[in-house]
Amino acid sequence: VSREPAAGRASSELDQVLALTPDGAGRYSAELGEGWTIGHAVNGGVLLAVLGEAFRRTLAAAGHPDPLAISAYYLSAGAPGAAGLSVETIREGRTMTTGQASLSQTGRDGHPVERVRALATYGSLDSLVDDVRTSAEPPEIPPLGECVSAMPPPDPAGDLPFLHRFDMRLDPATVGWASGSPSHRGVIQGWLRLVDGREPDPLMLLLAVDALPPVTFDLGLPGWAPTLELTAHVRARPAPGWLRVRVSTRNLAGGLLEEDAEVWDSRDRLVAQSRQLARAPMPQRGT
Amino acid sequence: VSREPAAGRASSELDQVLALTPDGAGRYSAELGEGWTIGHAVNGGVLLAVLGEAFRRTLAAAGHPDPLAISAYYLSAGAPGAAGLSVETIREGRTMTTGQASLSQTGRDGHPVERVRALATYGSLDSLVDDVRTSAEPPEIPPLGECVSAMPPPDPAGDLPFLHRFDMRLDPATVGWASGSPSHRGVIQGWLRLVDGREPDPLMLLLAVDALPPVTFDLGLPGWAPTLELTAHVRARPAPGWLRVRVSTRNLAGGLLEEDAEVWDSRDRLVAQSRQLARAPMPQRGT
Repeated sequence: VSREPAAGRASSELDQVLALTPDGAGRYSAELGEGWTIGHAVNGGVLLAVLGEAFRRTLAAAGHPDPLAISAYYLSAGAPGAAGLSVETIREGRTMTTGQASLSQTGRDGHPVERVRALATYGSLDSLVDDVRTSAEPPEIPPLGECVSAMPPPDPAGDLPFLHRFDMRLDPATVGWASGSPSHRGVIQGWLRLVDGREPDPLMLLLAVDALPPVTFDLGLPGWAPTLELTAHVRARPAPGWLRVRVSTRNLAGGLLEEDAEVWDSRDRLVAQSRQLARAPMPQRGT
Repeated sequence: VSREPAAGRASSELDQVLALTPDGAGRYSAELGEGWTIGHAVNGGVLLAVLGEAFRRTLAAAGHPDPLAISAYYLSAGAPGAAGLSVETIREGRTMTTGQASLSQTGRDGHPVERVRALATYGSLDSLVDDVRTSAEPPEIPPLGECVSAMPPPDPAGDLPFLHRFDMRLDPATVGWASGSPSHRGVIQGWLRLVDGREPDPLMLLLAVDALPPVTFDLGLPGWAPTLELTAHVRARPAPGWLRVRVSTRNLAGGLLEEDAEVWDSRDRLVAQSRQLARAPMPQRGT
């Protein structure tokens, strides 16, 4: 018995969380699996990808299936379980359509709690002109075999299930923090792919921009750095294979920091850029 | 007869365009003066500052008067004249409040046309912690006297009235494009202040991030580079005096580019960072 292509695709872990159920015009239901949590919260990149899929379903009818720019304002921490999404088309243009979306869950008191509000402009990556004048160079990352796997040992009781969704190989020069010697340069970079081999696409890039450890680790600040706002630009459809991701920060001040991410594909194309404003972890004693 | 401070403040050109008229709960009217146009469109930074003021009026009641992050999606070109704004509070938190806003005008057919949809998180810059660990360095810009004034000669029929709102002195190394020799490095930087001496504040920073010539000029691409999306982070209240602004791009591809701006105040503090996704001008013959 041959499987439908859609069913085969949905067998990847990412496609399972992106398998939204239509729930009326511009409304969808999602199931945020426990596997996408870190600590007790669902990773912000997963929420962004789920929102990205809801936008895609709504805006593709206008011929604009791909995220070009998406801005997410994080309102409260996402929990594993059911989520509801709603998408509104704001303006449909010839080459781009802009929309607004919201992701909510039912809170402990039974009332809906909004997790993320987002704006996005979608277009068609395949119909962009071929002109490439980028001056950006891919980050210099040692070969895979010389990098450090970020996957923690299997531990059913562990609180980092998110990390098991990836094969992540970090540049040894940017993992000093793991052994108590952060570089203080404000950079973490490495190779990234989904552990089940699912190839990158524009929605996977939305996940990739927030998948690495917080760049604050490299500043000697362990702990959580919750995202307040994240804007991602998807600049090209990624080629199959490993991605290279570099996160960096230059301005930790006033208890906040920006974290910039860039994502390169296997053909050396800068396929996504993002910036987020995050709350810095409180400094620990001795750092 | 002594004037009220509010009236005195409103005598500056920027405060005139920011003098919104309340129009019901969360609704305001603005008058976008001809002086803020470039070509036939109102500059996007002015629209961002006007939206920023509407957010401020609505969110200040929660004790959060300052923009920390604001994302604007530009839907259609703003025209001089009346505009209507509406602001909705999405989530009010202890240290920050997030809202959504829209700026519309009446189109030629008499129907409302939305110009910009925005999300923003506001807080209190004065209550942020003092910790500053930035590794960013101010751009190296020659002294004022060695820089090039960007103000065009007075010309009532000119189409660049926006430039007359500023005293802008550009680094000679980044104005080769004005004499046909763009550097192709993708950088323009210089000193900036409002021509009437109005000191910078957080809303003026929203104007400053989109006030310099498009960075595409330095890539040898004259012409307009319309903003699709712009996100600005205001990181500190600026000190009085000249600002230094640097705009740069690394990735012009597929007919789009990112333009990053950083704004430094007279005390060498990185007070604002922004990134926009813009449509690249079509290449001219011979470039």
